[in-house]
Amino acid sequence: MKKTLTYLALIAFFYLGAQEHPNLILTQAGVDEIRANLGKVPFFDAHLAEVKAEVDAEIEKGIFVPIPKDMAGGYTHERHKQNFFILQKAGALYQILQEDKYAAYVKAVLMEYAAIYKGLPIHPQPRSYARGKLFWQCLNDANWLVYVSQAYDCVFNYLSKKERKYLESELFRPYADYISIENPQYFNRIHNHSTWGSAAVGMIGLVMQDEELIQRALYGLKDNSVDANAKDNDGGFIMDKGGKAGFLANIDAPFSPEGYYTEAPYYQRYAMYPYLLFATGLHNARPQEDIWNFKQGVLLKAVNTLLNLTDTDGEFYPLNDAQKGMSYYSRELVSAVDIAYHYGNQDPGLLSIAKTQNKLTLDDAGFAVAKAIAEGKATPFEKTSMEITDGPQGKQGGISIIRSGEPEDELNLLVKYTAHGNSHGHYDKLSYSLYHRGEEVLQDYGLARFVNIDQKNGGGYLKENTSWAKQTIAHNTLVLDETSHFGGNYEVGSKYHSEKYFSATDDTGSQWISVKENNAYPGTNLHRTLILLENKTLDHPLTLDLFRVQTNDEHQYDLPFHYFGQLMSTNFEYTTTESLSALGTTAGYQHLWLKARGQADEALTQISWLSNETFKTLTSVTDKEDEILFTQLGASDPEFNLRQDPAFILRRNSKKSTLFVNAIEVHGSYSPVTELAKSSVSKVKDIKVELDTQAYTIITLSFTSGESVRFCIANQDASLSAQHSINLEEEQIKWVGPYNQQQLK
Amino acid sequence: MKKTLTYLALIAFFYLGAQEHPNLILTQAGVDEIRANLGKVPFFDAHLAEVKAEVDAEIEKGIFVPIPKDMAGGYTHERHKQNFFILQKAGALYQILQEDKYAAYVKAVLMEYAAIYKGLPIHPQPRSYARGKLFWQCLNDANWLVYVSQAYDCVFNYLSKKERKYLESELFRPYADYISIENPQYFNRIHNHSTWGSAAVGMIGLVMQDEELIQRALYGLKDNSVDANAKDNDGGFIMDKGGKAGFLANIDAPFSPEGYYTEAPYYQRYAMYPYLLFATGLHNARPQEDIWNFKQGVLLKAVNTLLNLTDTDGEFYPLNDAQKGMSYYSRELVSAVDIAYHYGNQDPGLLSIAKTQNKLTLDDAGFAVAKAIAEGKATPFEKTSMEITDGPQGKQGGISIIRSGEPEDELNLLVKYTAHGNSHGHYDKLSYSLYHRGEEVLQDYGLARFVNIDQKNGGGYLKENTSWAKQTIAHNTLVLDETSHFGGNYEVGSKYHSEKYFSATDDTGSQWISVKENNAYPGTNLHRTLILLENKTLDHPLTLDLFRVQTNDEHQYDLPFHYFGQLMSTNFEYTTTESLSALGTTAGYQHLWLKARGQADEALTQISWLSNETFKTLTSVTDKEDEILFTQLGASDPEFNLRQDPAFILRRNSKKSTLFVNAIEVHGSYSPVTELAKSSVSKVKDIKVELDTQAYTIITLSFTSGESVRFCIANQDASLSAQHSINLEEEQIKWVGPYNQQQLK
Repeated sequence: MKKTLTYLALIAFFYLGAQEHPNLILTQAGVDEIRANLGKVPFFDAHLAEVKAEVDAEIEKGIFVPIPKDMAGGYTHERHKQNFFILQKAGALYQILQEDKYAAYVKAVLMEYAAIYKGLPIHPQPRSYARGKLFWQCLNDANWLVYVSQAYDCVFNYLSKKERKYLESELFRPYADYISIENPQYFNRIHNHSTWGSAAVGMIGLVMQDEELIQRALYGLKDNSVDANAKDNDGGFIMDKGGKAGFLANIDAPFSPEGYYTEAPYYQRYAMYPYLLFATGLHNARPQEDIWNFKQGVLLKAVNTLLNLTDTDGEFYPLNDAQKGMSYYSRELVSAVDIAYHYGNQDPGLLSIAKTQNKLTLDDAGFAVAKAIAEGKATPFEKTSMEITDGPQGKQGGISIIRSGEPEDELNLLVKYTAHGNSHGHYDKLSYSLYHRGEEVLQDYGLARFVNIDQKNGGGYLKENTSWAKQTIAHNTLVLDETSHFGGNYEVGSKYHSEKYFSATDDTGSQWISVKENNAYPGTNLHRTLILLENKTLDHPLTLDLFRVQTNDEHQYDLPFHYFGQLMSTNFEYTTTESLSALGTTAGYQHLWLKARGQADEALTQISWLSNETFKTLTSVTDKEDEILFTQLGASDPEFNLRQDPAFILRRNSKKSTLFVNAIEVHGSYSPVTELAKSSVSKVKDIKVELDTQAYTIITLSFTSGESVRFCIANQDASLSAQHSINLEEEQIKWVGPYNQQQLK
Repeated sequence: MKKTLTYLALIAFFYLGAQEHPNLILTQAGVDEIRANLGKVPFFDAHLAEVKAEVDAEIEKGIFVPIPKDMAGGYTHERHKQNFFILQKAGALYQILQEDKYAAYVKAVLMEYAAIYKGLPIHPQPRSYARGKLFWQCLNDANWLVYVSQAYDCVFNYLSKKERKYLESELFRPYADYISIENPQYFNRIHNHSTWGSAAVGMIGLVMQDEELIQRALYGLKDNSVDANAKDNDGGFIMDKGGKAGFLANIDAPFSPEGYYTEAPYYQRYAMYPYLLFATGLHNARPQEDIWNFKQGVLLKAVNTLLNLTDTDGEFYPLNDAQKGMSYYSRELVSAVDIAYHYGNQDPGLLSIAKTQNKLTLDDAGFAVAKAIAEGKATPFEKTSMEITDGPQGKQGGISIIRSGEPEDELNLLVKYTAHGNSHGHYDKLSYSLYHRGEEVLQDYGLARFVNIDQKNGGGYLKENTSWAKQTIAHNTLVLDETSHFGGNYEVGSKYHSEKYFSATDDTGSQWISVKENNAYPGTNLHRTLILLENKTLDHPLTLDLFRVQTNDEHQYDLPFHYFGQLMSTNFEYTTTESLSALGTTAGYQHLWLKARGQADEALTQISWLSNETFKTLTSVTDKEDEILFTQLGASDPEFNLRQDPAFILRRNSKKSTLFVNAIEVHGSYSPVTELAKSSVSKVKDIKVELDTQAYTIITLSFTSGESVRFCIANQDASLSAQHSINLEEEQIKWVGPYNQQQLK
């Protein structure tokens, strides 16, 4: 019977041009099904009760629509933000519980906004390239409308025609115009800011059935008078080279075919909400757009990709500008998981993520997830090694995630060889991070910012984000001559991307990833091969890192290891000093205190440290002219904006082409409760470079157990069928393909 | 029937002088009850299976009794340690499972030890004042015998008389003599080392029924030819002033009446094992000693006291020399909890700790605990505010633990005003630590040592333990003239203790603790009052710290705040420098890098920081001559032995008597997942010193809400009935007793 009614409503819509409400994120059919199942689906009921308690408490407190004044973290900012979250929830509660008090609340708040909106000046804080009216930047104004358009859809039929006309003419239409027509430098970009803008304009357009707004949202402004060289607050170009804009162009450009978003996971997480919400609205209210199949269904693929870009604890890898700790527990990922399940292929692995999140959206998608969980359909979401391309066609390098071991003892090796990543990109070509049990062994610093903490520059980016966090030395990759990749120049860096040379990342035995970068330094070719080696001698796989540099000039090379924890031992002498100075003056070096320096061993240099109750050892092939620098972050930091993290830097002076060979072991354990130290000593006995030419690199690694393993790489020919043969002393070594591993004894 | 048999055995013992086995920790009656209940008590069965699997795996590997060679952390050390743990467990398994393979294993291992023991030289490592034979120090040799005597008791009847005679004459008796007669400087002390020694000698004496060993264990060596001024490796005196020794004297001297052990919880935890195990042995095999009632039953009281000396997560407060992370999950506390339950008053709160530990001892006590848990008797172990005295008669100061809030959001304020604490004591009179949710807000550094990690000085104390960890500046208390309390002199510090002045620590409303120290600096009286203030304006109680100094001379005063986390804001200017130097040259100051310094505000100085997702603010009453120093640990640390922890130091120059008033707030929250900053700003608007004389101190604290609270202290009269009356400007203030709190508006 209900289905028939829904069907009739659909027919009415097509024939009469009328539209039922809600029909954006919640649908009438969804509401009917939810209401018919209230009390029967425990996860949904529990979450509904939680949201009801939260909204009831807010309604109890009263309505607060203050005149905008503060930056992020300040009262008026946080209050307007709280308002849009609560309005969206109150709208859903009205539909699901059909209690008028929720609609009355939404109406009352909207009326207050409508009463002041047109009279509001531009927000008094002058810090944004596109200042909003409710908030300091249009971006936050767009956030508000993405949420509030959902609330409006839910109470649409509760309001009289006259009330709707009032709200639309006094609030929604001028609001949508302000963040689009009046701020083209904000609206008409290929950027997450504009995704929010087009979703906001499009979603309210769908509710209002305002075709002009919908077209503007999908395709951007036609009249585009923005200076082609203008930049935003983060230094990003405002105009895309192609001159395209709007929601569809914003799907097309930044996503790779697998759904990797070029700004990296932290911003992908942020952008997923408007992408998926407006797409859901289009799916429901404008099915003819066939949005879920746009660009081979990239939006739903993106959810799976994003979930794979998390460590063992579900925290996003902090690539590019990224605040650490952000995870798939965020509200954006709660909706993403629910939507991907409901509108995608009903992947049962998503259900276990939803269970872990312990939150739902109060709509068709959230209900579908809760119901499937109640039906016992959930299976574990299994993360394996994975490779992701970057670039709209997947031709601008990528990311490899190499995983090994069970989740409770898992190692993750994350290798980055992407394009720059727009204005949020870092100068970190061929860098990697290493994780053990969800904790960082070798870290990427992330961003230098305390998002939404008013005391720290109004919650905005700190200048140390540019002077430290983006610089090459802040990452586990090679720095030449104390200069960042591309000279730290955004225009130059944005032109290039690294390339995968070869990889073998199936989850059994050793996993290899070999990547190249030819533009970071002029006249210099960088080639890094990382191998996650499994061996029965080892309690955890060993990371073997071969970093080749080819150049005709002499350089100073710095290879940093951004570790955590306490130094245990070294096999070389080092000296500390009585006073500390910064290691350098630019490119991030001005932020590093030089705490000690040592001369490397003439063959093999070892450093061991302890963190998170396991030992780590770095074994480096060195000669006695190499130096080891011990640094700590925090110099040139007049406002204590940086963390005080330590690093080792392997420095090689005045060399032309060279090869760095490093092995990183995670080994043993130490418990402060049992006070037992197990396997606290490295199992690496020796590493020998047997050959290193333009064509081939051959390394032998020997363990204290007596075992030896040989690694062969063809440096110039990645063909899988190429046959290689080399005479090494008395021995002839043969293999097929770009790499080979041999157990010697 | 079984009870009758046990009874008959008991009669046989008394009348015939014979003794059944086991009868030390496991008893025959206990074994009978355990065997009758196998398969019926899930917790016990599960733990039994776990131990069986562990021991079976060890038996499988074979027997290893290497010639001693290494320091702690090295192979021979760890192997002999592993042996005694496994022998003890194998003995218990033999009794409980009655499978001969376990007894055969114990016998085989003991025979190997017996074959080599007499021929072993003194351990080759020369670092101890009392070198062992199996280990580098007698202490570890005693550990071995405490465990192995239990194994011997369990297999006693499995061995032939001849085998027993062989083991006793070749191994146990010479072993016991070596750690007692041959090392009187080790055995005849009042020290945890000697507790292990007397327990070892006494426990093997009980099993062997060797009255000479038992007497030696209980009362010490009669012939005591140790130099009265000799010291041990930690700088502690070897001889107690009273010249007493043996197990009973070692109960008498270091424990206060509540069972606080003067060396502090970390060493109390370590010592509890021999105390409780030998006591259990005495209870079972020599009931006439009535050991559980010795000194009003202090040994069992000590277990409760020790459990209360833990933070929310069960980790011991790291007072004096203490490795952080040690907790009630340690094996010593597993037996302590089981023994305290079984031989004490069957406190059902102990059962919930045992459940949390998820481990048991495989003996009478462990079984009793498992059975009671199976019967549903467990109740939560509730920690409230608590005061503990120090000193054998409880007259040498003490410790106050002030708690507030539910465990998941609990604040702990730990105030120390004890005696020195023997050789493990720190120079930290009137210091305190503050915890929130089990995380340190203001820390005590603990020790500078990596226990059992060979790479770090063989696992022993590091020189930075003396140069930093013991020094006053390493603690949250006042330093005069860059000199530690008692000039850092152990002989002087050991003569004195601080005193409680008054306290009010019931767990409702504000809690007060006021303490005095008159000997730390000559001619100087220190008086600190800490108030944990509850107020509806605050989301967590505020710590108000009033620190009065009376002296006739001018001094430089440094009051450090050993915080963690990231600086958020200050209300004063400070300057960082381009190079860092140590803050001083001695007394721990040589280890502090001076990172920045600022001139305090002329009235109220505020610093806010963020750690563990909550904000903290320090508000200090200052004048503009006061300075704020920002420091970081790590200077003069040539081997990276120290953590790199930060501190603020409030410095007051060239003042005679003075008063420090500081308020520490824990407020608001920040989540990297929601990115919401809540209540990130202090609620303290003003703090005024209304009066500060020899007789009275009156402070008024005002909140941003408009509320004000006044705190009055009578500085010279702690009488509860004394009436005080003061004219303050126009107002007459009256109160009774040493302190008073008034809500002003």
